[in-house]
Amino acid sequence: MTDELPAPSIRVPCVARRNDAASDSFRVIPEETPIAFTYGGSTHAVMMATPADLEDFSLGFALTEGLIDSADEAGEFEIVSSDAGIELRSWLAGGRQEAYAARKRSMAGPTGCGLCGIESLEQASRPLPVLDNALRVPAVALIAAMDRLPGAQPLNRETRAVHAAAFWAPGDDALIVREDVGRHNALDKLAGALARQGVSAAQGVVLMTSRVSVELVQKAARIGAPVIAAVSAPTALAVRTAEKCGVTLVAVVRGRDFEIFTHPERILEQVSSHVA
Amino acid sequence: MTDELPAPSIRVPCVARRNDAASDSFRVIPEETPIAFTYGGSTHAVMMATPADLEDFSLGFALTEGLIDSADEAGEFEIVSSDAGIELRSWLAGGRQEAYAARKRSMAGPTGCGLCGIESLEQASRPLPVLDNALRVPAVALIAAMDRLPGAQPLNRETRAVHAAAFWAPGDDALIVREDVGRHNALDKLAGALARQGVSAAQGVVLMTSRVSVELVQKAARIGAPVIAAVSAPTALAVRTAEKCGVTLVAVVRGRDFEIFTHPERILEQVSSHVA
Repeated sequence: MTDELPAPSIRVPCVARRNDAASDSFRVIPEETPIAFTYGGSTHAVMMATPADLEDFSLGFALTEGLIDSADEAGEFEIVSSDAGIELRSWLAGGRQEAYAARKRSMAGPTGCGLCGIESLEQASRPLPVLDNALRVPAVALIAAMDRLPGAQPLNRETRAVHAAAFWAPGDDALIVREDVGRHNALDKLAGALARQGVSAAQGVVLMTSRVSVELVQKAARIGAPVIAAVSAPTALAVRTAEKCGVTLVAVVRGRDFEIFTHPERILEQVSSHVA
Repeated sequence: MTDELPAPSIRVPCVARRNDAASDSFRVIPEETPIAFTYGGSTHAVMMATPADLEDFSLGFALTEGLIDSADEAGEFEIVSSDAGIELRSWLAGGRQEAYAARKRSMAGPTGCGLCGIESLEQASRPLPVLDNALRVPAVALIAAMDRLPGAQPLNRETRAVHAAAFWAPGDDALIVREDVGRHNALDKLAGALARQGVSAAQGVVLMTSRVSVELVQKAARIGAPVIAAVSAPTALAVRTAEKCGVTLVAVVRGRDFEIFTHPERILEQVSSHVA
């Protein structure tokens, strides 16, 4: 059904005010579509997202939500489009579907989804892995990778209104990039793309064009990415979470400057060979 | 329990790279806290948000989610803080709590929260009001209001990392402003602030420092705000939704320039009094 999907961007008319006068104009803007993730026929979540890279999105979301641990556990997959949005319909493999159904039943109290507040808050902070990863990244190479990112964001070049998540491995010039109106969706799509391509997130750095919320750190930790580097600032909870789960959090990357909030030992400054 | 709440921002240490050298530094970053909304003891949602203006947030969320139609229907309220986050504990008044409980029961199928994908997508697009509002806004006054917004964002002045939602009524210089790490949270807080202050959203304009996702248009429509104006671009679904529900969507407001995507008749250009 892929041919029925909406395009990821669209050119729309607008009235543009320029030089204190209004006139008819156009702008290319990103699409945003309700996307339901179902596993074995039961909805896990509905996200507003850009309708592109949907198989990556479905797989990556299952990985970062902890429903599966590897691409092998993703079973059948289909995309079902309707007037109301897009359903990403999955069945989990390797016993995961049964585990998922049991978890869902245990979450549902006598009044349906009626978890009390504290239970819901505790579920929202599921345990994270602690990464013990010896990766080292030269600062100048990280800056160079971040510099290449804008050139690898075709949807953002068109719209100037979407985020990107990218993966870069030191020593490699290539970036794997996924784009979305939501930064967390972009990272889920990237997680799925890495898994489908057999690329280990443990070998490199997740680059983000956005601020760093705790969700991004959680998703990076769940896929085993030891470093996350972002254009804008982190939240305090993102910093505390990165500290706890062994993720190096680099943020406010601007030109050749940046700030490291956690586990700075992974970022190497060039040691001067100058002898006084 | 307000005195136990985390501060909305915090100064944290970092390693700052400047002029190709690393040194110890600090940055003030926004807090982000899991916040559970419960009504009559049952959780409606958990949001990651800035822990400030929480009574506004609880009331505004209930209004924009359509759980209540006015501040009169908000019953008792308390804030419960725990290690896992903050619970905003409400009881709805005027028969709304019973209606809410019945709706929750009807949503829960035999396997708990197991709605199928299409049902979930349909629930995600709940009906919106269609605004028939005769408000007219001079373009130059709108630009002037947007110019005043950065000066009314204390948390963003500290952190450069949070969004604001503001309300401005033409003819009035004052702005009512709420800030949050999430743009939709900022708008929910604003909705609650307006309701608590007895200000009718129908009389003015919602200003946003962010892009415009469909959620922002839906929330503006639900509180009856006929105009939304934002610093960045809208999504295509935000434009279609604004068109349908009679909301004027102004975006990409930069200096004296902007673009109007829907219902432009509400924005008035100065008519020149020059006679040739």
